[in-house]
Amino acid sequence: MRQFVIHGHDAPTTGDFSLDDLAGGAGRLDILCRCVNSALFLSHAMRTDTRVHLVVGDAVTVRLDGAEIRYLHPNERNIAGMLRKALDATDRVIGHREASPSSGVYVSKRGLEATLDDIDGTLVQLHEAGDPLPDVEPPEDPVFVLSDHHEFTDDEADLLADRADERVRVGPEILHADHTITVAHNYLDTDGFTTY
Amino acid sequence: MRQFVIHGHDAPTTGDFSLDDLAGGAGRLDILCRCVNSALFLSHAMRTDTRVHLVVGDAVTVRLDGAEIRYLHPNERNIAGMLRKALDATDRVIGHREASPSSGVYVSKRGLEATLDDIDGTLVQLHEAGDPLPDVEPPEDPVFVLSDHHEFTDDEADLLADRADERVRVGPEILHADHTITVAHNYLDTDGFTTY
Repeated sequence: MRQFVIHGHDAPTTGDFSLDDLAGGAGRLDILCRCVNSALFLSHAMRTDTRVHLVVGDAVTVRLDGAEIRYLHPNERNIAGMLRKALDATDRVIGHREASPSSGVYVSKRGLEATLDDIDGTLVQLHEAGDPLPDVEPPEDPVFVLSDHHEFTDDEADLLADRADERVRVGPEILHADHTITVAHNYLDTDGFTTY
Repeated sequence: MRQFVIHGHDAPTTGDFSLDDLAGGAGRLDILCRCVNSALFLSHAMRTDTRVHLVVGDAVTVRLDGAEIRYLHPNERNIAGMLRKALDATDRVIGHREASPSSGVYVSKRGLEATLDDIDGTLVQLHEAGDPLPDVEPPEDPVFVLSDHHEFTDDEADLLADRADERVRVGPEILHADHTITVAHNYLDTDGFTTY
């Protein structure tokens, strides 16, 4: 199982946004849509071994399961529509339980820490000051944690410093979160850039 | 200089399409938008050493130069808006000359073969039956050629078989074109997955 946790600091916590303005009024939801695309899509197939956890704002998480998800297309507008439906369901969520407004999509009232509490696996922070990816043995059940276009806050950085098993970087260039996910997948697909 | 040539077989050759329906009425222009994103964007910077050539349909090519382009954002809608402006300028193109409707964006009436004729560098076809990427020495001036969600036609495949210097694959999984571009960039950034 591969998992990706992406924190969208400005992303909306309700479905009250326009699909025509994802990069503006919707708090850079476009970034999270591209992360979902990179995490879940193969050519003409889904990555059924992968889950994505989008932490939006401080206290809402949308989880997408590649094995269960249906009717998702790779374009930003379609993914945003599915996320809007999920965020519209936040009202129905009681305590730390999840609501599932569509197959493979779950929403809960959890922030970053509570979301990490519930995930098993080797926590890998993708960070520009981390170890080079080829120097790190691909973990069995990696959980990659990334931020959107913002840095993690000091509190979040402290949390990750405490929790992360590895801190890695994907190359000498600083990449967008979705591109980083693509490289991480390729590193795992090829067992550390060795098996083709 | 890194260059990417992507053939969008169904993509529109004029600007007569809606930004609300990129994956439908606009002939999967969403795919080409994501390819532009993967090819040109770093985090908070552009890849100034990179050019993208989008061959749309049989006889129009839009060229984007990472060193010259301005006011481009990574979301699909913004990129599609810039491509629509370029395609609206096709009428002004005479012969094989280029029109430039905005900084770093050029449009010409050239199909795949004429576009390849005009590009210098080592032609690398990204193909699922190619050599593993780590077995191939990173070329000095690579020109990667990819297709959208369709296979290349028989005629195009013959052209590429004749022209390509290398045929490579990026891993055991078949990836979307934009994800393939991201892996190719990372392979070049890291000098063949070695330098970090």
